[in-house]
Amino acid sequence: MGAFPYLIKAKDGAARAGVLKTSRGDIQTPAFMPVGTAGAVKALTMDQVRATGAQIILGNTVHLMLRPGAERVARLGGLHRFGGWHDPILTDSGGFQIMSLSKLMKIGEEAAVFASPIDGSRHLLSPERSIEIQADLLGSDIVMQLDECVAWPASEDRAGEALRLSARWGARCKAAFGERETQALFGIQQGSTFAALRRESSDRLIETGYDGYAIGGLAVGEGHEAMCEALDYAAGFLPADRPRYLMGVGKPIDLVEGVARGVDMFDCVLPTRAGRHGQAWTWAGSINLKSARFAEDETPLDGDIDCVASRDYSKAYLHHLVKSGEILAGVLLSWHNLAFYQALMARMRKAIREGRFESFRRGFHAGLAPVEVKPA
Amino acid sequence: MGAFPYLIKAKDGAARAGVLKTSRGDIQTPAFMPVGTAGAVKALTMDQVRATGAQIILGNTVHLMLRPGAERVARLGGLHRFGGWHDPILTDSGGFQIMSLSKLMKIGEEAAVFASPIDGSRHLLSPERSIEIQADLLGSDIVMQLDECVAWPASEDRAGEALRLSARWGARCKAAFGERETQALFGIQQGSTFAALRRESSDRLIETGYDGYAIGGLAVGEGHEAMCEALDYAAGFLPADRPRYLMGVGKPIDLVEGVARGVDMFDCVLPTRAGRHGQAWTWAGSINLKSARFAEDETPLDGDIDCVASRDYSKAYLHHLVKSGEILAGVLLSWHNLAFYQALMARMRKAIREGRFESFRRGFHAGLAPVEVKPA
Repeated sequence: MGAFPYLIKAKDGAARAGVLKTSRGDIQTPAFMPVGTAGAVKALTMDQVRATGAQIILGNTVHLMLRPGAERVARLGGLHRFGGWHDPILTDSGGFQIMSLSKLMKIGEEAAVFASPIDGSRHLLSPERSIEIQADLLGSDIVMQLDECVAWPASEDRAGEALRLSARWGARCKAAFGERETQALFGIQQGSTFAALRRESSDRLIETGYDGYAIGGLAVGEGHEAMCEALDYAAGFLPADRPRYLMGVGKPIDLVEGVARGVDMFDCVLPTRAGRHGQAWTWAGSINLKSARFAEDETPLDGDIDCVASRDYSKAYLHHLVKSGEILAGVLLSWHNLAFYQALMARMRKAIREGRFESFRRGFHAGLAPVEVKPA
Repeated sequence: MGAFPYLIKAKDGAARAGVLKTSRGDIQTPAFMPVGTAGAVKALTMDQVRATGAQIILGNTVHLMLRPGAERVARLGGLHRFGGWHDPILTDSGGFQIMSLSKLMKIGEEAAVFASPIDGSRHLLSPERSIEIQADLLGSDIVMQLDECVAWPASEDRAGEALRLSARWGARCKAAFGERETQALFGIQQGSTFAALRRESSDRLIETGYDGYAIGGLAVGEGHEAMCEALDYAAGFLPADRPRYLMGVGKPIDLVEGVARGVDMFDCVLPTRAGRHGQAWTWAGSINLKSARFAEDETPLDGDIDCVASRDYSKAYLHHLVKSGEILAGVLLSWHNLAFYQALMARMRKAIREGRFESFRRGFHAGLAPVEVKPA
């Protein structure tokens, strides 16, 4: 089963290294997907995103249906052609926006109805419309089912309702999607931080049957420890032979701990958003270039990261750009952070293939230790 | 005389095509210099600036002395190393800022004293300090004399005072600069739109003797026609065997008309500033990508311009980026506009070498005609 073959090449503990073979190219896993919310990975050209090593990017159904409009993207040849990204694209279904835009949303059995934050216009997002937008109009390679993601904390009753609505919406998405050879449909596990609900959600997803399985509803405020605890059981409930995708996660440490628990795919706005605010990740931890301690620091951000930001510029220059409010600061730090994330994924894949993931994980924690220390 | 040989390879009417041979590389003239006010050409990496064909960029003394500070740039190895631009750099002296920041400035015979718009701190800019900052601390290749640039309109008395102060400041700059083998000092002609004053200014500049001569105090509100009228005489007052640099100019049509009157070098923030506001130049005139008429226009900005903006993206996508407030819009349009400006300079150089500049100029006007037409 599954539109795209998923070959697991190596296992090391719960961690897996594999390749998802899509009709637009291979995706090495564990994979990090840069987020191109509105058809652009913020501040970067697609060439720059490719140069970081990214093999797949993410687009957002709700943002794109509001602007420029899904029918318009279709008339312009689909999202790949429109945005100039010719490798695989995964589109989020809108479940996260149903939560984050909840004040503008009304959710019923049939669909979510919401007002555009741009112009107040009224829009309907049903499972069938979500599939039409993602699969037919945008032309996504990996289509996500429409789901309801609840904020944290949620009561067990509320989380249970949401997962059951998500399961019913998922079955309708599957029916609307049908069988396709060059596109895949992923289901989304919900259930907040309740093991029994994560189990129930998984059972219903497997009953419907998808090409891949996402873990939704985490990284919504529960914190790193609680997320790891949920992942301890949540990942294992999902089929071992299909890709597992942890949605909207996260910091580098979250990626390492997710991979350790059997997750294959991640996406997050953090590397680009934090980059626009002066933050950069390095193998020695994260730093904020606003700090005056970098004003005369001639060293590169991270000499181990193959990116123009480290190759051509010093921390002192990046500090100056951040302090001066130069757009280039956001460009270079977003670019660097995505390159760091891709380098992290590549190192994890290599460690898994070489049977030394646990050692890599310990070393990563040790390298980060200096910045994890809190003042007493 | 002159630190850098200036070889005029071809003349066509008053237009000249040549090469200024600096110790950091050749500059083909007529040349357009992108402006890197604070050590960065706004929104672009130095690689991207180089890719447009730029052979020299401009830095700004007043901006850099305020942030990050000239002594700091010196400790970081000079402006080339700090900003990652290893080709020639010309630094503006601060004359234009003396005008534009006039509310914060107090000008005396000895120096200009001003308050920093960043933090209110008090700074002094004398001819000697301007040379120290540009030549010794930033390490500029082409150093501009400190001058006083008057706003337009100015009375003949006021314009005369300013040019005479500029002449005295210029002589002090020359004395402070001394003789250097790997750096050049340019004088600046002032005199507003008064031919007699432009003549007087030029005579005094020639008496002092510089490696190149700039025309300052134009493009300050007088308009294209008045600027062309002033250039009709102003350029001819300057030595024919040294480069002539028209400061702060301009639109593509200004560059063509400047070259037609014997100008060799230009700089302007317009291509990058307008790019950040959605405006793009093409061989058919300028367009604003905000306009809804581009919403489904699949054609590139200008297929004749070798730039990622036209190679990888459509006007429809650029329109979407502008409407969505994406940083990438400013990046791509700034990049495109600089590539267009460099292509324009290259076409002018070629036309001059081939003895058909007048035909090129007529063709350029004809191509622009559709957007020059005003509604009746």
